[in-house]
Order: sequence, then C-alpha cells, then structure tokens
Amino acid sequence: MERLPGFRDFYPEPLPHTDTWSADARQFIFDRWRETAKRYNFREYDGPPLEPLELFTTKSGEEIVGQLYNFTDKGERAVSLRPEMTPTLARMVAAHERNYKKPIKWFALPQLFRYERQQKGRLREHFQFNADIIGESDPAADAELIALLIDTLRSFGLTEQDFVIRLSSRNAWHDFFKHGGGDMAHEYAFYQIVDKLERTSPEESEKKLSVLGFSIADVNQFIESGKPTAELENILQNLAARGLGSFVKIDYRVIRGLAYYTGVVFEAFDARGEFRAIAGGGRYDNLVKLISGGKVNLPALGFGMGDVVLLEILKSRGLLPKFDSHVDVFVLIEDETLRAPSLKLVQDLRTAGFAVEYSLTPSKSDKQFKRAQELKAAFTAKLESDSYVRIRNMKSRDEIVAGFADAANHLR
Amino acid sequence: MERLPGFRDFYPEPLPHTDTWSADARQFIFDRWRETAKRYNFREYDGPPLEPLELFTTKSGEEIVGQLYNFTDKGERAVSLRPEMTPTLARMVAAHERNYKKPIKWFALPQLFRYERQQKGRLREHFQFNADIIGESDPAADAELIALLIDTLRSFGLTEQDFVIRLSSRNAWHDFFKHGGGDMAHEYAFYQIVDKLERTSPEESEKKLSVLGFSIADVNQFIESGKPTAELENILQNLAARGLGSFVKIDYRVIRGLAYYTGVVFEAFDARGEFRAIAGGGRYDNLVKLISGGKVNLPALGFGMGDVVLLEILKSRGLLPKFDSHVDVFVLIEDETLRAPSLKLVQDLRTAGFAVEYSLTPSKSDKQFKRAQELKAAFTAKLESDSYVRIRNMKSRDEIVAGFADAANHLR
Repeated sequence: MERLPGFRDFYPEPLPHTDTWSADARQFIFDRWRETAKRYNFREYDGPPLEPLELFTTKSGEEIVGQLYNFTDKGERAVSLRPEMTPTLARMVAAHERNYKKPIKWFALPQLFRYERQQKGRLREHFQFNADIIGESDPAADAELIALLIDTLRSFGLTEQDFVIRLSSRNAWHDFFKHGGGDMAHEYAFYQIVDKLERTSPEESEKKLSVLGFSIADVNQFIESGKPTAELENILQNLAARGLGSFVKIDYRVIRGLAYYTGVVFEAFDARGEFRAIAGGGRYDNLVKLISGGKVNLPALGFGMGDVVLLEILKSRGLLPKFDSHVDVFVLIEDETLRAPSLKLVQDLRTAGFAVEYSLTPSKSDKQFKRAQELKAAFTAKLESDSYVRIRNMKSRDEIVAGFADAANHLR
Repeated sequence: MERLPGFRDFYPEPLPHTDTWSADARQFIFDRWRETAKRYNFREYDGPPLEPLELFTTKSGEEIVGQLYNFTDKGERAVSLRPEMTPTLARMVAAHERNYKKPIKWFALPQLFRYERQQKGRLREHFQFNADIIGESDPAADAELIALLIDTLRSFGLTEQDFVIRLSSRNAWHDFFKHGGGDMAHEYAFYQIVDKLERTSPEESEKKLSVLGFSIADVNQFIESGKPTAELENILQNLAARGLGSFVKIDYRVIRGLAYYTGVVFEAFDARGEFRAIAGGGRYDNLVKLISGGKVNLPALGFGMGDVVLLEILKSRGLLPKFDSHVDVFVLIEDETLRAPSLKLVQDLRTAGFAVEYSLTPSKSDKQFKRAQELKAAFTAKLESDSYVRIRNMKSRDEIVAGFADAANHLR
C-alpha cells in the first residue's frame, strides 16, 4: 500500500531510499527554529490543521480554493486543511488578544497543505516556521522580526555568503504608483505584474504595464534607484546597530504575491541564486480586523520559512550534522545468569539519564560488541558479577571496573 | 470566525479562557515523551496525517469508516485523516524494513483524528505518543516496551501511587475460550464481550456469553484467578529485575477492543480510578503481513498514550510546572541616545544564547522595569554609556557594572 502522492514519510537515518525523508533532519530543524524563537522571546502557539474554508476565502478570496486541500466533511461543513498559518493566528489573536500584553510575539511550526491538480510530483504538504509580531506599528517591530529571520538562518551555520534578505515595501510601490498617475483601483494588479517581472518576458510585462499607464523602463528605473523610504531607512539603521546590516539589502523587485500585505515586505534568498526563496514575509496591518469582522484592529507582521528549501540549502552547503542513533551505553550481557542484574543496570543507567541499549535476547558476545560499535555507543558496560561493572570507553578503549552503584559516575 | 468543533487552539500561558489549551503544556509533554524514548534508544519517525482510506479499512474492516474523518479528495481518492498511527507504521516498515537492524524500536508523536457524529463536545483530534518494537517475538520485547511506558509516566513525576499497568494476554483468553469448548469462529466476539464487561450489566453479559457457551461465573473466576501464563510470568520477572515490578499487575479484565491484537495486551490506569485509561497497547504479530499484502512478516508490539487524559491526570496531581515566558535578560533602554548600542547589546546577548527582551519603542523606565518583572526576567541590563552595562540580578537585587563585552559573563 502506497502513501498519497505529494506526502512524505519521515524515517530515522540512515535513510532507506531517496524517496524518503529524514525524521532526524526534520527534528534538527524544528529544534533550531524553537531555540532561536525563544532567544527572541517569541512564545509558541498552534491551531487546528483543519479550519472552516471560510477562514481562508475571507482572507484570500474565492480564487484561493483551487489551491486548497478543501472538502466537505461528514457534517456538511466546507473545511480545508490549512494552506498557511496567518489566518488561524489572526483568528486566535482576535479571540483573546486582551489577555496578552502588546506586542504579541508568537511562533508556530505548522504543517501546511495545498492541492494543485496539475503539479505532478510536487509536494502537497510542508512544515513552516511562522513568527509574527502583533500590536506594534513602529518599524522597530519590522527590524526585530527581520533580525529573528537572520538569526534563525545563522543558527544553522548559514552566513552572509549564503543568504541575503531582500527588503522592500508596498508603501514605496504605492507612492511610485500614485505619483505615476496610476488608478488606485488597479493598484494590486500593478503589484502582481511587478511580482512576476523576474519570471515574465519584458515584452509581456511592458504590455501589461502600459494598460495601467506605466512603462517597464520607469519600473526598472525605480527598482534600480533602490532608494530606501524613511521607514526602510529606519529598519536598515536598526539592523546595522545590531551588527546585522550586511545581511540586508533594499530590493524593490520583491513585492510578494499575496494581496494582504500593507507595508514592508521581504524575502530571504540564497545568495548563490540556486534555490527558491528560503523565507518571506511582511506587514499585514488590516488582516486581524478583516478576520475578526471589524471587532479587533491590530497592526501585524510576520514571516514563514518552509522546511523543504531550507533542507535543500543546508544539504548543499554541507551544514547538516550526521544523525546517528545516540546511544551513551551499550550493556553487554555475555553471561545469561547475569541477565537479571544486567537489566537492573540498564534501568539504573536510564534513570540516571543515559540512552542505553542492550540485546533483548541471548546473543554471542562478538555480535553484541559489533552492535555497540554500529550504534556508535560511547561506552560499553558489562557485569563481571552481581556487584562489579566493566566499563569500556569505546573511543579511547580505556577500561575500568566500577562498583554497580558507582557505574554511572564513570560514564561522563 | 470560530474554529471547527472538536478541535483545539493552543495558546501560550497564562491561558485566556477555559476553552483554550496550553501550547506550553503540550510542548512540555512532547519533550518528556521524546526524552524518555531516546533513553530507551527508540528512534523518531512520522508519516502523513492523511492516508488512503484503504490503509485503515484493510486493518480494521469497513465498520471503522463510521468513526473516521474520511472524505473524497479532489483527485477522487478515498482518503482519511489518520485515526491511529499503527497502520502507517506497518506500511512504512513493510516498505523499507531491510534497511534497519531488528528489532526496530521507533516512536512518533502524531496528531490523530476521528469523526463521530453523535459525540457532541468530544474532541475530534488528539496527540499520541506511539512506541513500537518490530521484529522481536520474545517476551523480552514486551518487557522492554512496558518498561518504557512506566518510565514515560514516571518522567512526569507519576509514581506507583498514581498509576498501574494492567497486564493481560489474548493468548490466556484464547486458551480459556478453547478449553471451555468455544467455537473458534466466535473467538473475537467473545473478546468483545470481555472487553465490555466493566461497562455492561451482568445480566446482559450473561446473555451474550451464554450464546457462545460460557457463563459469567466462569469468566469471572478466570479473571479472579489472575494466574499468569508462562509468557506473562516471563515479563513480570523481567520487569521485577529492573525494579519495576510494583508498577504491574496481572488483570485479565483488560483484553483491548481492537481485533488485531495477538498476544500480550496492557493498559496504564489511574490508580485512583478517576480517569480513563492513560495508555494502552499490545502485540499485533500479524499486522505488518496484512498491510504488506503478505510480502513482509514481522512480529510487532506497541502502545499509544494520548495527551488529553495525561494532561488531566498531571493537572489533578499538581505535576504541571508553571509555564512563564522564559526571559534571561531584559535590556532597559532609558536613554534613547543609547538605543543603537543597546540593540547591539540585545544582539550580542542573544548570540551568546540568552533569551532577551526589550521595549521596541521608547517607554518610561518604570514601565520597562515592571515589564521585566512581569516576564520574570532573571536579570536586567542597562547601558550606562557606550562602554558600560549595569546588570541587576532580579532575585538577589545585586547590581554590578560590567564592560560591554564582558556583560554576558555576569549573567550565569
């Protein structure tokens, strides 16, 4: 029986097949995400993987449904596996924001889903690190969030040679569009053309822009000028004060496809240009109000970082550690009359916090020792009698004999 | 907009509402589950939350569909959110077992789903700690797994006054049924009557048993005898050797409802009888063969422990820690001309591994200090100039002034 197309099985390493994913690498990534978020005093939250369909169409319009893993449940409810976390976050914050001091700094590691018929072989789920700041309109919040993004990538060993944050602003584009005489009713259509510039032929972009009264030359000139707005300048100075200035550059080509961004937008890119964007985010000051039906109005911003591109880049840079089973002590049971006290030793060492393995059933001593080597156990421990344990350091090959109750002290 | 009925929102503590769940408590439980599994050298795996419906009906028959969160996806596939992890595990092991030395010792922390129309207010999802041993038929594997179950509960501070493992065996019941002249075609029907004994009136049980040629007196006598089979005796001795004997008792009332158990079965119960079973499991030696269509035949056993009952019992026993935001240092910025070097201090301390918070925007000094207190920061740090930092231990109230680069050394 096969798993569903686009879904992943996560196995312990060493991986059995190129079509499988590493549960160890996934946990490694999750641990770094959590650890960095905590250094920034972001608190963890989570919501249901399944939400009312309306939550997503309210935010993104009916056209989003074509990309959703949505269905009608047994209670005749229109529901969807979540394609992103932000609507759930907005719903949760709107429901209980009064309980939390502002700014709210929260993160989550949700699994997200999409269903696009045509994309054969493409993944239909991934995990994402989502970090958001809610309730602060000052650009100091944007800088804090971008610093978290930078430090998250640095926590994996990535440097300014590996990635760059391309910083832009819907406000800068708004001014360009307005001062260029654009019809504000077509502002979002204009953003979408800019968003696709790098993936569209100049002729086609020119054609689309001219309908809105702009030329590709004007647009390119604005992009090349790269002149930061006062808001962006503020963020750049804040990041420079932290010593993170070299990780960021103004790049107005970034505008983000989604309709709901309202201010600063940014993406983290592979500096070598080999991979898709590693992360992206921005301000969405109107979303909490929209999702809460006007009841709660809080400025907000956030980013999402997926596990798939991150894993690819870490692999390509050689930044993934080797994931062995982590065994501290392999207890050798060579004399079966000593199995009972050996089990006690196993138990005592585990209670003392060590990861302990042993042979469940009688087995030749050389086979047990080989297994200890395969598992890269740091030590072996073997009862010499009811009262004495022979401990071998598998690296140095040093051996000592310790009293039963004293064994744990020789395993650090 | 509301979340779907039966699903949970997980918020950071302090919780805003009795209808919300603690993301901190969830992570606390997950951390303990992982940490204990690793001491036993169990490796983590995971599969998709969505699987082909057939995976679950193959294992449990068509009658399971009434309890599943199943639907037809956009590709016309019959699919289901997973109601349990074992079929996924069997599928994954069957696909790649040759890559792994036996016994395979794996664990997972899946979110599981069910959809029962009638059960208003009941949860439709929960998280479960699943641990399984595959490829070992010796009762030593059963003892190892039960020891893990016991130590998992002990890792939360639960003792033998709090829980007991009720140990039973399908084999013991098989012998009873066979020697009592039962028709083997009705063996599973008999197990189901036994499984429901505690929840059914004696009259009704008597009626059902008599159809199969048994009396409730015979059944009760067998239960009360509590005589362990050789296999169970082996397990009891193994656990006694580890010093865990007092956590286990033979209790033939436990038989487990599911059809696929083949040998030892067990449940972890609240010793005070206030809560539902905390965990349950057993041997399912035929399942891998069934799921693999006969290609792979491996004995197996496992248990599942849900997060909901566990959380209830930990709460009732006062065993949940207080979950504050964990801030090591609150950086006070009282002189706004020092904001830039203060941001550098924030960055340096975070880079050194500390959880650091500060006020994103200008704020009165007493307000900042109050916030540091609310966040239970261990220290405050305040720049006196570009070069000196005043560090205050919030508990002892000791203050020292350190050089900028030396600040981190005074925060341990």
